[in-house]
Amino acid sequence: MSDPAKLAPSALSLVPFVSVDRMMRLVLERGVERVLGEIAAYIEEDFRRWESFDKTPRLAAHSRDGVIELMPTADSLAYAFKYVNGHPRNKETGRQTVAAFGVLADVATGYPLLLTEMTFLTALRTAAMSALAARHLARPEARTMALIGNGAQAEFQALAFKALLGVDRLRLHDIDPEATAKCRRNLAELGFAIEECRSAEEAVAGADIITTVTADKRNATILTDNMVGAGVHVNAVGGDCPGKTELHPDILRRAAIFVEHEPQTRIEGDIQQLPPDHPVTELWRVIAGEAPGRTSRDAITVFDSVGFAIEDFSALRYVRDRLGDGGPSLDLIADPDEPRDLFGMLLRAAGAA
Amino acid sequence: MSDPAKLAPSALSLVPFVSVDRMMRLVLERGVERVLGEIAAYIEEDFRRWESFDKTPRLAAHSRDGVIELMPTADSLAYAFKYVNGHPRNKETGRQTVAAFGVLADVATGYPLLLTEMTFLTALRTAAMSALAARHLARPEARTMALIGNGAQAEFQALAFKALLGVDRLRLHDIDPEATAKCRRNLAELGFAIEECRSAEEAVAGADIITTVTADKRNATILTDNMVGAGVHVNAVGGDCPGKTELHPDILRRAAIFVEHEPQTRIEGDIQQLPPDHPVTELWRVIAGEAPGRTSRDAITVFDSVGFAIEDFSALRYVRDRLGDGGPSLDLIADPDEPRDLFGMLLRAAGAA
Repeated sequence: MSDPAKLAPSALSLVPFVSVDRMMRLVLERGVERVLGEIAAYIEEDFRRWESFDKTPRLAAHSRDGVIELMPTADSLAYAFKYVNGHPRNKETGRQTVAAFGVLADVATGYPLLLTEMTFLTALRTAAMSALAARHLARPEARTMALIGNGAQAEFQALAFKALLGVDRLRLHDIDPEATAKCRRNLAELGFAIEECRSAEEAVAGADIITTVTADKRNATILTDNMVGAGVHVNAVGGDCPGKTELHPDILRRAAIFVEHEPQTRIEGDIQQLPPDHPVTELWRVIAGEAPGRTSRDAITVFDSVGFAIEDFSALRYVRDRLGDGGPSLDLIADPDEPRDLFGMLLRAAGAA
Repeated sequence: MSDPAKLAPSALSLVPFVSVDRMMRLVLERGVERVLGEIAAYIEEDFRRWESFDKTPRLAAHSRDGVIELMPTADSLAYAFKYVNGHPRNKETGRQTVAAFGVLADVATGYPLLLTEMTFLTALRTAAMSALAARHLARPEARTMALIGNGAQAEFQALAFKALLGVDRLRLHDIDPEATAKCRRNLAELGFAIEECRSAEEAVAGADIITTVTADKRNATILTDNMVGAGVHVNAVGGDCPGKTELHPDILRRAAIFVEHEPQTRIEGDIQQLPPDHPVTELWRVIAGEAPGRTSRDAITVFDSVGFAIEDFSALRYVRDRLGDGGPSLDLIADPDEPRDLFGMLLRAAGAA
């Protein structure tokens, strides 16, 4: 800061950066299952102190082909936001339907602490969240999971349930058999007994846990009432925006329903099909010991997951803690020698050029 | 996309990136005044089609020491957001009070087109906006400007008024004489006749345009009613959030008042001191020819500027157009060979490592 001739970016300018490649290396070096377990632990820690967070609705910009959303949240020390799109037709041009990046920042200064890809990180945190919920809601001996919808999120779900609950038997189904084949291939050497199923009905047979993670953007009925037996935990991930649901409402009426942030889930979750006063429990209350989770062996539990900003906060916090010092960073914040002398910084750059 | 062995980031992964250093080079290579004039032209173009933009209020996270804001806007083709903080005490630790970065994205795919520093870019667009407004509101022969508040924004204001209106006589004042000395020093060789003034009263004497760009976060009275004579244009930049104003309300009562986005300025601008039905004109209507600007030589005009997301949109669009192909970019968006095979991308990275 004191050398006026210094033109290389100062430490105050630099924001640690995690590219897609760096994220993959971070995950692979540590191991996918370990990372999923650790992210779940960060989410659990943050859900326990749920009331210390600002909870803002996401800010969505809708267009003909999709939506771009900003999802911010903060506690008294850190601020986080995620940029995420949802464009179902992106598949046609080889792009991701959902891509994301995000920032963690210091509340005390407003300066970013981390800029990172979040397409992988969102897949990881969504799966970690699902498995964390199931650890509180599924029967403890659950080992068999039906996984309906075998797209980009499927393998992460499977590994998170293995890491957190010991699930090692999968019953896969997708309306597109190629998706199922892809999922089976990717999981082949990762310690699961895998059954490919020709229908959702076949997939749920004997399953302790049913995960629905389909991508269709409409009110679909992936599960009908007769498909969900006593004692099952339903992890409903794919019904996550207005007009996009997966469960027949009769399942919800028989079940104990758990949600992330009730005001958001009323609009985006499967419970958009129910009257607005139908009882639900926010999951953080179960985690904090304020509300019961599963109350009997025969109860049907549903985690109506839509994804909430605090989960991204936890995931960003996790990545920040993993980085250590050094590593790639971005020259993103102008840092003049004297804070009010922004123009002088430009003049000195001109002089040096 | 077709080579499964390819692990280097694909074109779809890469987001063009403008660091602080690259922004300075871009501005210096083209010339500050030229860039200010060109950004003003982009803003003018976008203000002319004002009604084609989504206008969302900024999303602010307030804390003890400051605020972090997200400012999004979009038209049917492009989406932009800016991340900007406001932390008055940052000066104490050598940080910027206001630092910013932002993103331009493609509405059709949701994919980012540009990630850029915006501390410099905000200073440039704010000054360009001020001068653009003055070109529509100040008397055409105005050449002398009082510049009250000589902090980080001051030189950019001076150069924008020179570029767009030919202002070449400056009367500087700041409660901190060191700020004035800094401003004078930075502008010394840039074609102005400069007068340092010991008071705001002295600074406004003989000025055609009065620019207030002070930083104090409270209801200050930088200008009292007697200081603003007939025919003057007041460019009020510093009063830009609730509880932060610069003008005595009596000035506003005598003046024709122009604003960016009325609902936002009612809360954040100097007009927060007036009744909510006091007449104001949105500047875009003047630019589009739908409302008069200055109606007589003796009229007092006030541009009550608070900064609006469309100005950032214009500035981001400008930077994107200047970049051309090539140049630094970030591996920010995961791009698996097959869009639904995100996990497979991770497996292939592991295989390659």
